[in-house]
Amino acid sequence: MRDICADHGERELVRRITRILEVEEKDDCAVVEDGERYLVWTTDMLHRRADFPAVATPWQIGWMTVAVNLSDVAAMGAVPLGLLSAVGIPPETETSFAEEIFRGMRDCASRYGTRVLGGDLDSHDELTLVGTALGGVERDLILRRRGARPKDLLCTTGTLGSAGAGLRVALEAEGKGMTKVEDPDLRALTKRLLEPAPKVEEGQALALSRSVTSMMDNSDGLALSLYELAEASGVGFSVQEEKIPIDPSVRMVAEDEGDAIDLALHAGGDFELVFTVSPDRIEVAANACNLSVIGEVLAEKEMVIESDMGRRALEPRGYQHMMKLSTTPP
Amino acid sequence: MRDICADHGERELVRRITRILEVEEKDDCAVVEDGERYLVWTTDMLHRRADFPAVATPWQIGWMTVAVNLSDVAAMGAVPLGLLSAVGIPPETETSFAEEIFRGMRDCASRYGTRVLGGDLDSHDELTLVGTALGGVERDLILRRRGARPKDLLCTTGTLGSAGAGLRVALEAEGKGMTKVEDPDLRALTKRLLEPAPKVEEGQALALSRSVTSMMDNSDGLALSLYELAEASGVGFSVQEEKIPIDPSVRMVAEDEGDAIDLALHAGGDFELVFTVSPDRIEVAANACNLSVIGEVLAEKEMVIESDMGRRALEPRGYQHMMKLSTTPP
Repeated sequence: MRDICADHGERELVRRITRILEVEEKDDCAVVEDGERYLVWTTDMLHRRADFPAVATPWQIGWMTVAVNLSDVAAMGAVPLGLLSAVGIPPETETSFAEEIFRGMRDCASRYGTRVLGGDLDSHDELTLVGTALGGVERDLILRRRGARPKDLLCTTGTLGSAGAGLRVALEAEGKGMTKVEDPDLRALTKRLLEPAPKVEEGQALALSRSVTSMMDNSDGLALSLYELAEASGVGFSVQEEKIPIDPSVRMVAEDEGDAIDLALHAGGDFELVFTVSPDRIEVAANACNLSVIGEVLAEKEMVIESDMGRRALEPRGYQHMMKLSTTPP
Repeated sequence: MRDICADHGERELVRRITRILEVEEKDDCAVVEDGERYLVWTTDMLHRRADFPAVATPWQIGWMTVAVNLSDVAAMGAVPLGLLSAVGIPPETETSFAEEIFRGMRDCASRYGTRVLGGDLDSHDELTLVGTALGGVERDLILRRRGARPKDLLCTTGTLGSAGAGLRVALEAEGKGMTKVEDPDLRALTKRLLEPAPKVEEGQALALSRSVTSMMDNSDGLALSLYELAEASGVGFSVQEEKIPIDPSVRMVAEDEGDAIDLALHAGGDFELVFTVSPDRIEVAANACNLSVIGEVLAEKEMVIESDMGRRALEPRGYQHMMKLSTTPP
């Protein structure tokens, strides 16, 4: 009986690999000591079939490749220092399509004050893009997944669910064989999915505010991110359903309110920051960036949602495509 | 008429991309300022069909992924600070095969005093591995491709051609449907291809010797590397054929002496350092590491080989699979 990778959950495979490499799965970036500061760096592989719906433009593919990596740097409170990209491209790709990918990378990096400094170009049967981002952060400002304490307030930047709504629109268009979403409002929704805005300034401002006790990005969805934060800090979370900042656009595609909440909690791709703040520092944090308080940290390791219907378990469902492993120096 | 990537040479595509990204194709690594030192970093994509013959073990696949990146760090005279890896793995891969890949990565990093600190695990139709290495080097020690001056001596570390000979053995075995080379001597030759030894200590020692005027690794073969060095420095090279340190093992597979020289010049994969040294500093360089003087720098931009048969042009043939773009800060 062969024992193949598909027999194991992603978490189990990552667990085995981290044991081999003797690293701990811990933060959005790996951390390297660098004198007075830490360097943080991260890498993410994206590829055509798994990560990009048919309606994605090449410019969006490039933008996304940079954005997902900058989001990891942002989640540590770090300043981006640059990116590299390794791109495997099918030889039959139109040259203008390939060029647009790199324009998208350039424009996303530039938007966040940094640059793609180089990389590797390869030919590949499937369009495959691996971005790598490097950041720097003062030692006492770095934000990690661990550090949440009971009674800390649970917060998120921005609004949630629009990327998931955009994915639904994109997949529906794809199912109809369309390569473009014609309705401008619906197309705007797919932009929320395909042109994520990593919270680079917000991450740095929150770090400088010295009010945050733990942080990560919510790329795999709020629910899964909360499970990660909870595990890293050895705590639980209580989320107040009515405080979840559901993006208004979600209601364009959600079947009902329950579905809208589901998209906000489980769909992923929003690339917001989810973090915890000492109750006495919440005003300082709120001055650093727009945030919503959506719950609090529990001493017990339980994960619950409170609503006027009562209390229920927060399900660990979400987007588990990307299996990250990263660590800090021993 | 569609204009596709395959219509263009790799160099032309890289030229277009570097123009979009506003970087210059220059060194083995991208360079980032970091206080008193430079950070250097590099990324390389490898994948199953293009880069690994059937006889490659998973451990060798992992080793290679780390080694090719460390070789780029070595070529700048830098100390490795760590690596990340993004791996896309077919779900039907045997779990033990996947684990061996990561053991190979770990062992190569460890051999050179560094570690794989994290990364990204993904599923992919074709096994695809992207390593990223970070290094650090004092500002006045960094070695670049530019800087060679007329009359400087042209040098290489190690011996050349064994990786090319190993590739020949590996492809012959593959052609016969074998997944292992039975003859131990021939198998040793495939190890030269599949377990390259990046010249990390040599690169640092050469940098500290302050005798080197330009350097790069020869991963694409000596001939192509010399063309790169020549272009970066605006010079030419004269190579003395009888001084090329052809690895003795090459003669196990070479048809004749001309074929042996061809493997040493054009086959690639040796991961030695090729560099130029001021004539008055050659003893200092030779104390830093084992080297062979194989020619000299010409003021004219010509590329020639001298032998007792006379003088001929050095052909720009070699392994062009990997298309690198990297840069220095503006």
